[in-house]
Amino acid sequence: MLKVIAFDADDTLWHNEAFFQEAERKFCVLLENYLPQHTVARELLQTEIKNIELYGYGIKAFMLSMIETAIRITDKSIPNEAIEKIIDFGQEILQKPVDLIDGVDHVLQQLKSRYRLVMATKGDLLDQERKLKKSGLEHYFHHIEIMSEKKEPDFKKLIRHLDISPDQFAMVGNSLKSDVIPVLNLGGYGFHIPYHVTWAHERVESEINHDRFKQLSTIHEILNYV
Amino acid sequence: MLKVIAFDADDTLWHNEAFFQEAERKFCVLLENYLPQHTVARELLQTEIKNIELYGYGIKAFMLSMIETAIRITDKSIPNEAIEKIIDFGQEILQKPVDLIDGVDHVLQQLKSRYRLVMATKGDLLDQERKLKKSGLEHYFHHIEIMSEKKEPDFKKLIRHLDISPDQFAMVGNSLKSDVIPVLNLGGYGFHIPYHVTWAHERVESEINHDRFKQLSTIHEILNYV
Repeated sequence: MLKVIAFDADDTLWHNEAFFQEAERKFCVLLENYLPQHTVARELLQTEIKNIELYGYGIKAFMLSMIETAIRITDKSIPNEAIEKIIDFGQEILQKPVDLIDGVDHVLQQLKSRYRLVMATKGDLLDQERKLKKSGLEHYFHHIEIMSEKKEPDFKKLIRHLDISPDQFAMVGNSLKSDVIPVLNLGGYGFHIPYHVTWAHERVESEINHDRFKQLSTIHEILNYV
Repeated sequence: MLKVIAFDADDTLWHNEAFFQEAERKFCVLLENYLPQHTVARELLQTEIKNIELYGYGIKAFMLSMIETAIRITDKSIPNEAIEKIIDFGQEILQKPVDLIDGVDHVLQQLKSRYRLVMATKGDLLDQERKLKKSGLEHYFHHIEIMSEKKEPDFKKLIRHLDISPDQFAMVGNSLKSDVIPVLNLGGYGFHIPYHVTWAHERVESEINHDRFKQLSTIHEILNYV
């Protein structure tokens, strides 16, 4: 009955959040003469959440929020050299190699003849295209969707575009909030594969108990269910 | 024979470049104690072009390039207050109302029953979606394509996705470089409607002489050809 399996990209197909957290640690160290590191991290998160509506997700939004936070918490006294470093932190992430999560290639290979595979991700358009190209996974996907948000209306649009009904759609990802819950609410299937680190803004505490939901520990386990 | 008419968005459907040029003027004034305004503008353009490969197009890339340029040309002595102003210039653009170009609504209304209409634009994903929503034009379009680049391979992919041949595709836009030339090269039709200002990086000097090309002065003139 299932026709389309959609995969989140960052931290589902390849490692990503670890790069952001590494940059964030460097940012907190850069500013520790002004505020304790954990307070810097909290201030940055506040700026990021405030700016989502204006900037959306992705690396350029992260860079602009780091600069804005640095100016605010230093009371407008951050040296230009430090702002240059912040720009470097971001530009470094944009040039990282793409490191696939174990098992991804094998699983996509197994599934591609039986289902239409889709990649559905948030973030910077160009950056996600760059990562997909570098990943070598492009040929597995029937459709690539880079979305500004992953809420119910966004998945509804995607499912309509794919010309299927929600119960023919499964989403696989590391975020309960962005990959699983909206799809379950629409009548689709959700597979959750936690990544060892999660951005604070994506964390949800809820336990999910649902017929169409499966909690997995590795991507390989999908093959037991579809 | 023509099946799909695709429209560029910024400066074709609604005013946009004027906002960027206004921000750029303010940026040049902000830095005129360091360098003459026209030199600041040239330095900014250089930074923008250097960063396209990393950042892509759109407002966040523009903001990051302004900050980088300000630090460089002031020899790392730009005050924090000025960087805050640069961030404000960008955030202001992100909150501008959408002002349609004369005749757009009428022309789309006339064409929508006879052709599949597509919007094909570069820029920030979220920002372009925001403008489309604010424009009230969304219902005219069968498909929205927000592209990281508008070169031949990008249009080739779009035309394939639309399941048509290139000679069933026409592109309408204000940039010869991004809207017209790649489409003519692929075998499609190109309509050029100049906007009164063009970003330096999009300017081309060439005269185009081509069977499948038409130079227009307003969007309304399309109705004489299709």
